[in-house]
Amino acid sequence: MNIDTLIHARWIIPLEPEGTVYENYAIAIKDDKIKEILKSNDARKKYTAKEELDLKNHAIIPGLINSHTHAGMSLFRGLANDLPLMDWLNNYIWPAEKKWVSSEFVMDGTKLAIAEMLRSGTTCFNDMYFFPNITAEACVNTGMRAVIGLIVMNLSTAWANNSEQYLTKGEAVHDKYKHNPLIRTAFAPHAPYTVSNESLKKISFLAEELDIPIHMHVHETEDEINQSIKEFGKRPLERLAELDLLSSRLIAVHMTQLNDKEIDMLKKYEVNIVHCPESNLKLASGFCPVDKLLNHKINVSIGTDSTASNNDLDMIGEMRTTALLAKGVSRNHTSCNAYTTLKMATYNAAVALGLDKSIGSLKKGKQADIVAIDLGKLETMPVYDSISHIIYSGGREQVSDVWVAGKRLLKNKELTTLNMDELKNKVNLWEKEIKNSELKNI
Amino acid sequence: MNIDTLIHARWIIPLEPEGTVYENYAIAIKDDKIKEILKSNDARKKYTAKEELDLKNHAIIPGLINSHTHAGMSLFRGLANDLPLMDWLNNYIWPAEKKWVSSEFVMDGTKLAIAEMLRSGTTCFNDMYFFPNITAEACVNTGMRAVIGLIVMNLSTAWANNSEQYLTKGEAVHDKYKHNPLIRTAFAPHAPYTVSNESLKKISFLAEELDIPIHMHVHETEDEINQSIKEFGKRPLERLAELDLLSSRLIAVHMTQLNDKEIDMLKKYEVNIVHCPESNLKLASGFCPVDKLLNHKINVSIGTDSTASNNDLDMIGEMRTTALLAKGVSRNHTSCNAYTTLKMATYNAAVALGLDKSIGSLKKGKQADIVAIDLGKLETMPVYDSISHIIYSGGREQVSDVWVAGKRLLKNKELTTLNMDELKNKVNLWEKEIKNSELKNI
Repeated sequence: MNIDTLIHARWIIPLEPEGTVYENYAIAIKDDKIKEILKSNDARKKYTAKEELDLKNHAIIPGLINSHTHAGMSLFRGLANDLPLMDWLNNYIWPAEKKWVSSEFVMDGTKLAIAEMLRSGTTCFNDMYFFPNITAEACVNTGMRAVIGLIVMNLSTAWANNSEQYLTKGEAVHDKYKHNPLIRTAFAPHAPYTVSNESLKKISFLAEELDIPIHMHVHETEDEINQSIKEFGKRPLERLAELDLLSSRLIAVHMTQLNDKEIDMLKKYEVNIVHCPESNLKLASGFCPVDKLLNHKINVSIGTDSTASNNDLDMIGEMRTTALLAKGVSRNHTSCNAYTTLKMATYNAAVALGLDKSIGSLKKGKQADIVAIDLGKLETMPVYDSISHIIYSGGREQVSDVWVAGKRLLKNKELTTLNMDELKNKVNLWEKEIKNSELKNI
Repeated sequence: MNIDTLIHARWIIPLEPEGTVYENYAIAIKDDKIKEILKSNDARKKYTAKEELDLKNHAIIPGLINSHTHAGMSLFRGLANDLPLMDWLNNYIWPAEKKWVSSEFVMDGTKLAIAEMLRSGTTCFNDMYFFPNITAEACVNTGMRAVIGLIVMNLSTAWANNSEQYLTKGEAVHDKYKHNPLIRTAFAPHAPYTVSNESLKKISFLAEELDIPIHMHVHETEDEINQSIKEFGKRPLERLAELDLLSSRLIAVHMTQLNDKEIDMLKKYEVNIVHCPESNLKLASGFCPVDKLLNHKINVSIGTDSTASNNDLDMIGEMRTTALLAKGVSRNHTSCNAYTTLKMATYNAAVALGLDKSIGSLKKGKQADIVAIDLGKLETMPVYDSISHIIYSGGREQVSDVWVAGKRLLKNKELTTLNMDELKNKVNLWEKEIKNSELKNI
């Protein structure tokens, strides 16, 4: 049978069926989909592929899904460090954004982000930033998959002046991309402290109407809780509950401040949690109780947050931090074992985004979003357990090949849809400009 | 003036004087030492070098010092995961060691470790393992610098049968290498729970006599504390104090369990602490109060621990985990800023090892232990602050060149004193053998 691509690999870790690792199997791709996963020997007999790869030292996993980022911010990587969230936002990031953010800035930043994500095995990202139309365009141009956040906040920016305008422009982006196979949208009210009750009610209604998720920073810091109690007389999660925002549609990011009652509520409403361990550590925001949430069978996935607060978009590193930190915080050495962590970054993320029918695992009929990791490097030798090595010893540099919707976007570590030199030149120009003006005031 | 090597670099971060970053400077090397650090333009006029490099996108830092590892264990990388310390030791690692550890095992494992360390910017490691003579030999053969731990414990192993024999054999290793420029030794009593009072007293006396440090796991877990209280009626640190072991000679590793009285005692006796964040997280051992220790002006450096509990020897990654975790644990976003963290992994480590006169910073007359990190990769673009990028965005794969004692051991990412193919073949053979027998029982 004629197919497009046949990848033989030492290990294939499909995530479905749960816990399986295939050794010396092959994955067959036709068009944008996975045709079959079968023994290499059988595959060689059954299929004739336009492209056939023999990855002798590699592990194949479903494409990693970055469940929370702000891709367009990448030109601010490491602009200000070692600060608390509100100081960092109010005195550095928001003023810098006011000055610099434009459609050009978002296009170049998003391309930088996509390049970094592909090079580290991410095939889909859940984004929240200004000019979501541009973010979507950058994805379509490069073949990247994304859930584009239709940002809403009560801050006037280059993208929109007020909540109403954010919503209108967001809906237009949704309409434009609703039939694009790579692009989904989500409403992205920034945070409880930047969006009014009125806007949140509208968003709740519209999200039902368009049948899309709601992506929001929630309970990121203790300050946020205290401010909400002062302003609304209640904790943010309670306020969101009253506004009918708690449901399986909600993707609540950070969640470092949670009491037991709230955890029960999250379970009851099937809210999805995105854990951003490195951002939470770096901004000293607190610890998300991942072990507790997983024990309550709450869906938890992983996000890097932006390069301004992380300072990278490396999901391999973020999985490692997740697996390590969960054990430290819970004092439970079995928490977030290697397999669970990989599942959080793939299958659980697909569930959160409402995309588990098409991505998140390697399964016949699903989209061919596939990542090959070379475990034949000294840093991951010897190999007693491939999944353990991906999480605890592997690095972003070991990602060799990446397919999104069957298209090979990273080929032997080379990007195929992005011109690296051109991109670097553009980033260098932005660096010079931002450095010359911005850093004088910091 | 004729010299051996002249390295021009975009950034040179010497660590001395404190806080300095030189832009477009050069570092001149003659024989094994740093001759001078000066402006590139001046250097071109003043020096004629056998080898001259122009590292336009690179940051130059002092070689990283891994303050705690067990290099010879590298062939056990990822052998058993997601377990607590005593279960992991008693039921997996110690039985596996009993079966496999030999001089050949330690030689091949140490070479694998040295290769991994050089590739990630480490130029010196503080080791503790069986067959320290072999570890030293591997270092001398490859040009690596190390402080070789003369291990002592009350467990019979292939290296020694009893404490007396460990000491005698250890002293012989010390004698053999005492004039070697790359090798220093330290007594390495394994831990309070594996070494008797009598042996500890002897070690305290001998360390004074030979004028070498004492390298020991101390207060790694709560279990260790409880066991000590049961057996000795006191906490381990109190016991060590009574045995006269607390001094600037002591390198106390882990230290996750510390009360305020103990922190005062550590300060008073000028004990050196080694923080191993990833090992402590992975084994759910607890959090070392790094922020508090630093505020007390206690000398803290960083170690990876072994690949069996980490599971890598990557000091770039370990610095990042250190910088992130300290903020999370202390809830202080300014704790372990990028510069402090880099200092912990270089200068502070040299102080702990008693080697600060020769290594730990880039300074005229010091050993030329130098690392170049390529910040011109997408993952660290744009650059607003080179130190921030090394800690928060950089990866081991960005280490391009490494010099130890003036000798270039990593050249454009290629090892110059280790045969990669030969090493990989050996590791593969060990993998096969250990897998076939060991993993059946796990």
